[in-house]
Amino acid sequence: MIELSNELLHTSIRKRPDESHKGTFGRVVLIGGNETYGGAIIMSAEAAVNAGAGLVTVITAEKNHAPLHARIPEVMVIDWTRPQEVRSVLKDADVLLIGPGLGLGAHSRSLLQQVIESQQANQWLVIDGSAITLFAQHHYELAFPSQVVFTPHQMEWQRLSGLTIPEQTQQNNQRLQKKWGTNLVLKSHRTTIFTANKQFINPLGNPAMATGGMGDTLAGMITAFLAQFEEKEAALCAAVYLHSLIGDALGKERYVVLPTEISQKIPYYMKQFEQ
Amino acid sequence: MIELSNELLHTSIRKRPDESHKGTFGRVVLIGGNETYGGAIIMSAEAAVNAGAGLVTVITAEKNHAPLHARIPEVMVIDWTRPQEVRSVLKDADVLLIGPGLGLGAHSRSLLQQVIESQQANQWLVIDGSAITLFAQHHYELAFPSQVVFTPHQMEWQRLSGLTIPEQTQQNNQRLQKKWGTNLVLKSHRTTIFTANKQFINPLGNPAMATGGMGDTLAGMITAFLAQFEEKEAALCAAVYLHSLIGDALGKERYVVLPTEISQKIPYYMKQFEQ
Amino acid sequence: MIELSNELLHTSIRKRPDESHKGTFGRVVLIGGNETYGGAIIMSAEAAVNAGAGLVTVITAEKNHAPLHARIPEVMVIDWTRPQEVRSVLKDADVLLIGPGLGLGAHSRSLLQQVIESQQANQWLVIDGSAITLFAQHHYELAFPSQVVFTPHQMEWQRLSGLTIPEQTQQNNQRLQKKWGTNLVLKSHRTTIFTANKQFINPLGNPAMATGGMGDTLAGMITAFLAQFEEKEAALCAAVYLHSLIGDALGKERYVVLPTEISQKIPYYMKQFEQ
Amino acid sequence: MIELSNELLHTSIRKRPDESHKGTFGRVVLIGGNETYGGAIIMSAEAAVNAGAGLVTVITAEKNHAPLHARIPEVMVIDWTRPQEVRSVLKDADVLLIGPGLGLGAHSRSLLQQVIESQQANQWLVIDGSAITLFAQHHYELAFPSQVVFTPHQMEWQRLSGLTIPEQTQQNNQRLQKKWGTNLVLKSHRTTIFTANKQFINPLGNPAMATGGMGDTLAGMITAFLAQFEEKEAALCAAVYLHSLIGDALGKERYVVLPTEISQKIPYYMKQFEQ
Repeated sequence: MIELSNELLHTSIRKRPDESHKGTFGRVVLIGGNETYGGAIIMSAEAAVNAGAGLVTVITAEKNHAPLHARIPEVMVIDWTRPQEVRSVLKDADVLLIGPGLGLGAHSRSLLQQVIESQQANQWLVIDGSAITLFAQHHYELAFPSQVVFTPHQMEWQRLSGLTIPEQTQQNNQRLQKKWGTNLVLKSHRTTIFTANKQFINPLGNPAMATGGMGDTLAGMITAFLAQFEEKEAALCAAVYLHSLIGDALGKERYVVLPTEISQKIPYYMKQFEQ
Repeated sequence: MIELSNELLHTSIRKRPDESHKGTFGRVVLIGGNETYGGAIIMSAEAAVNAGAGLVTVITAEKNHAPLHARIPEVMVIDWTRPQEVRSVLKDADVLLIGPGLGLGAHSRSLLQQVIESQQANQWLVIDGSAITLFAQHHYELAFPSQVVFTPHQMEWQRLSGLTIPEQTQQNNQRLQKKWGTNLVLKSHRTTIFTANKQFINPLGNPAMATGGMGDTLAGMITAFLAQFEEKEAALCAAVYLHSLIGDALGKERYVVLPTEISQKIPYYMKQFEQ
Repeated sequence: MIELSNELLHTSIRKRPDESHKGTFGRVVLIGGNETYGGAIIMSAEAAVNAGAGLVTVITAEKNHAPLHARIPEVMVIDWTRPQEVRSVLKDADVLLIGPGLGLGAHSRSLLQQVIESQQANQWLVIDGSAITLFAQHHYELAFPSQVVFTPHQMEWQRLSGLTIPEQTQQNNQRLQKKWGTNLVLKSHRTTIFTANKQFINPLGNPAMATGGMGDTLAGMITAFLAQFEEKEAALCAAVYLHSLIGDALGKERYVVLPTEISQKIPYYMKQFEQ
Repeated sequence: MIELSNELLHTSIRKRPDESHKGTFGRVVLIGGNETYGGAIIMSAEAAVNAGAGLVTVITAEKNHAPLHARIPEVMVIDWTRPQEVRSVLKDADVLLIGPGLGLGAHSRSLLQQVIESQQANQWLVIDGSAITLFAQHHYELAFPSQVVFTPHQMEWQRLSGLTIPEQTQQNNQRLQKKWGTNLVLKSHRTTIFTANKQFINPLGNPAMATGGMGDTLAGMITAFLAQFEEKEAALCAAVYLHSLIGDALGKERYVVLPTEISQKIPYYMKQFEQ
């Protein structure tokens, strides 16, 4: 396993070209946030905007629009019950994230199916949270997409892989990665990343980060990094590593680190590592 | 009476174990916030999240969901008129708080009854604000729960105990504590705590804290501490003491201390005392 | 005319008594905020809470509840179309403010009438903004209340007094003050205050404060000061003076000073002057 | 081409007169924000208030009112489906901005038409975002207003002018400026400004500013500057230049600069340059 390090951030986070515009840094679409878990997609959106995605659109239950705009007017919102608008936004995306606060209802499942089935050759998908559980429940009906990142924690990985936590060994994980052709971010005390040819381990992170919403923030960061940086493997690893790096810095002074605090720090940390 | 002190914080606030996840730090459910008093449950939720509860769900009137998420997307929300979802969330809780901004209506009363009747052997209850008044009104119908903390101010304690304020002596209070088997936080200029075998007095607190919402914040802190720390008596005392310690620090520079400012400081103060 | 000065703040802003609770610092009710001007009553509420009112309830259009709670959960809210709840809250108030963002509609007028007609011997009223215009329009039907403060700017004072701006001389103003038995805060470049026996002039204030909402913030401060401090004339003068003192401090670094920024500073400035 | 410079800020940003009130600094009306793009008009409003407009009213879809007030209670709001209120507000404006988040629907188009047709001799218009695209689509039906600023980015300018991006030369742009009698702010890596007799180039700006909402913030600043400062050409140039100056300052520490962060800094920067 390759241990993630600061080096990686320097190689991933490129100095922005002078002649650029918001479209240069990607159109990102985030899908999630039902009637109960709206906060999750809000946190993903805050992370994505602060991590530099050029244009961020959120597809979510209508009741989440007002709090989302109260926190972060930089995003656009689509009511997830409007099929025509959803379709149009999905088509124009560079990277899609589905899952934070999505829930397990029938409508959520059909959105997941639509995202997977409408994926275009140039689009990357990030599948997180409830979308992983939904995917696991409908294994036989949903084909594994290509250009995809799954970001399960251990229980979600058990549901998807069928491996109990003790069985989640490096070998077993890598075998499923190969079989399914997916990139995996396996979140735990020491998060591991499995890509086509490599395995990475994140040496950072701390228990002050063990609080609701931390994964939603990470998912938003991953999405924004995939949208901006050419080298997708490096981008993925950099997002995971930077999320923990900031969490460790904040954790030195705080007993618990709020996910939204991490998002606020992202632009400053990215600046330090740009090259 | 034992005087609370910094010592107590050191023994209560444990360094978090490296291998942990959000579930390690407790599932907390907060119930309150009617059409008028929605701010109260928002303040409790902010306190609970900042005091380190791993997962926080708020059961409240639907109109409070948007402002709650605008302030603190880290929480999950349940519309309190949906019995099935309420039931499911109550079942999974480690610690439940009922009362901040709950009001005295029929629906509020039935939620209180449901919380008490569905309490499980492993669950702790915190009963605050309107829920104390409701409990007092329905004394004969509601059995005193075990593993419970009541947090009345003097008038609420009069309603519950039948003791007028001059009658609220240490002896009388302790007698009722024993009779009912409840833990009591009697809030006043110098808050006292009565548990099964001990009596504590809080030497801290100041009049800049005498503002609406301060009790809601305390209730959220107590709930989060009970969810995280093994020693319940010490956890309860630590929450009361820390709340005042922060209030005293802020009160040195402010004529009035807002409850939401206390919440923002909790993570920093807990860090200083962790051991 | 007596020039307001720092001295006044020292004599008005009393050190809070150790044995006190939120009720000690007054129950304040703020009425205003229609469908268009909801921001006004939000700003008054932020000022009142930060200026130390013990309990703040806002009676306003339902659409303003969510943004109000998103900014300041410390307040309670009543939908202004619910007569029974409105009546109950008015009855328990120590000081009432009516006017910020109230508008000139029939419902607003009937609320003003209700506030004036239901005034109790112990209650103080502050009449601001649209409520002044409404009062002027219905002069013959509404009796001047006692224990009242009117806070007009020059055009509002013209409507109420019938005096054109050039006619608004010290003598004419004082004459109407005497005739009507009201306290007047005449807002302008150099605000003047007329009470039963005295006239005051505010030497502070600056053009960076000439922005929408500044008067709503002042009205909230006046209300909170009347609720807390025994000497009403001094309290009124202190609120006017402190509002400008903070505005001048902020205006040294800002081309425009936002009303909400003033509110955030109030607790710190009150602390400096408490005695 | 004249290069914009600090000098310009000193000559534009006038020290405010001591005897002034909120009306002195202009009544500004902002129109935009449909069901999806509500954040855009929120960002324009934040910019306009912070840039010193005396009174700011926003005409927008009703669903945007709550998040707008949660962020910036200093503004007033009108539901854009209420023709009578819209008409009344348009009539009283000094400067109108239409476009941020307006969308391309039939209702948006009719609002644009109304704004243009009801323009009064003393009013300035700023036409931005979707309103430029709408104007381009209905070229033959809508006469070019006078006292107008168009603020297109390159693609919007192509739609309006018919010039492809390579054809957008200084000569061609100036020719259309003269033909139509409009002021143009052509946004790009190095924004250019075309007025009746002069051409300006902005030497500032950086790729950290290439994020959604940056143009909405600029439009709000331009609107506020036109409302406050007599010399309209200089005001326009100053707004463009200051927007980038702040963006450059923030971009030194941040990999991405959020539009709302720029707004928060405006009062401090204007103060430094006032003369």
